[in-house]
Amino acid sequence: MTDAPAAPSDRTAPAAYPIAPLIASRWSPRSFLDREVPEEALKRLLEAARWAPSCYNAQPWHYVIARRHREPEAFAALLDCLSTGNRSWCALAPVLMIAVARTDFPQNGSPNRHAWYDTGAASALLALQAAAMGLQAHQMAGFDPGKAREALAIPEGYDPVTAIALGQPGSPDALAEPYRTRETSPRIRRPIEEFGFLGRWGEVF
Amino acid sequence: MTDAPAAPSDRTAPAAYPIAPLIASRWSPRSFLDREVPEEALKRLLEAARWAPSCYNAQPWHYVIARRHREPEAFAALLDCLSTGNRSWCALAPVLMIAVARTDFPQNGSPNRHAWYDTGAASALLALQAAAMGLQAHQMAGFDPGKAREALAIPEGYDPVTAIALGQPGSPDALAEPYRTRETSPRIRRPIEEFGFLGRWGEVF
Repeated sequence: MTDAPAAPSDRTAPAAYPIAPLIASRWSPRSFLDREVPEEALKRLLEAARWAPSCYNAQPWHYVIARRHREPEAFAALLDCLSTGNRSWCALAPVLMIAVARTDFPQNGSPNRHAWYDTGAASALLALQAAAMGLQAHQMAGFDPGKAREALAIPEGYDPVTAIALGQPGSPDALAEPYRTRETSPRIRRPIEEFGFLGRWGEVF
Repeated sequence: MTDAPAAPSDRTAPAAYPIAPLIASRWSPRSFLDREVPEEALKRLLEAARWAPSCYNAQPWHYVIARRHREPEAFAALLDCLSTGNRSWCALAPVLMIAVARTDFPQNGSPNRHAWYDTGAASALLALQAAAMGLQAHQMAGFDPGKAREALAIPEGYDPVTAIALGQPGSPDALAEPYRTRETSPRIRRPIEEFGFLGRWGEVF
């Protein structure tokens, strides 16, 4: 056996209108190759997140990162925060992260209504930068925020928002069911007519 | 006078580590050329947003769009929802939008904790797609959500989250102060050491 399984099937988004290739190339795998993500690559991921826009430029996003081979204790602690289903396939991901949002404005301590929204933007850019480097990020809501706070020493005033698995996509065959099938099943989204309106709610283009 | 003012200065993000050119090219202008954004371009923007990842694939994002010349009443109503400062420069934007998040899961009606986070991701992709087409989007927290709900008939259960101005960037000289100066002042972000941690909160790379 070598570490060169069959490449995953083409997961490019089947876009109904032309979109930037980088955007179409992002997807959320569950199977990852056992290949380390170099520190330089992690810095480039953070750098991409860094340039997200944010309300009053508050930049509420934070990321706590653990690599399976380099920070094994933190990786195990982070893995232990995940839901049972996510834990099963994340155990072999090269990198796990928690995205964290600061809930007030550093400038004056008042609540930041857009802390999660802006952190979502930063994580989207992180995921696109991953795709640009041949990696992919899989974001998850299925984790225990309280456990993550304790395991990673996340202070009060900061919300653990999502867990992220990251690495180079691997073969679907490395996954157990039902994940193996999901890894190659069609990518589905609502058509733009259901969420894009012109002039007034419900007015379709 | 022609409609071809000086190109805006180079606003490419001064990235400390190499990032995808598309990500570096996104910025938030206040000056826009008086050029219509074709319907096809609006559909491509929505299409990019469409391929964002979301919790349980709930796709909570929605966009209500008004073009200054095509939907002038809706544009005026949307402009009227903005804070005074934003209204001054948005009056000349070719397109205004409101990003809206559905706050529960369509599948079962339970609250979607990640509605704003996922809508932030979708808007980030929309903004990148704009940049890919020579447009730019400027997202704003400074608007009145209640007024927007009323003006655009946004139903209960959906949060008006951000306003967005969009178009082809124009000359800073078209802006009054303090916006003219802001349009060309250096782009600032916290360094990655302040928000990216390895293994534990506060542990810098």
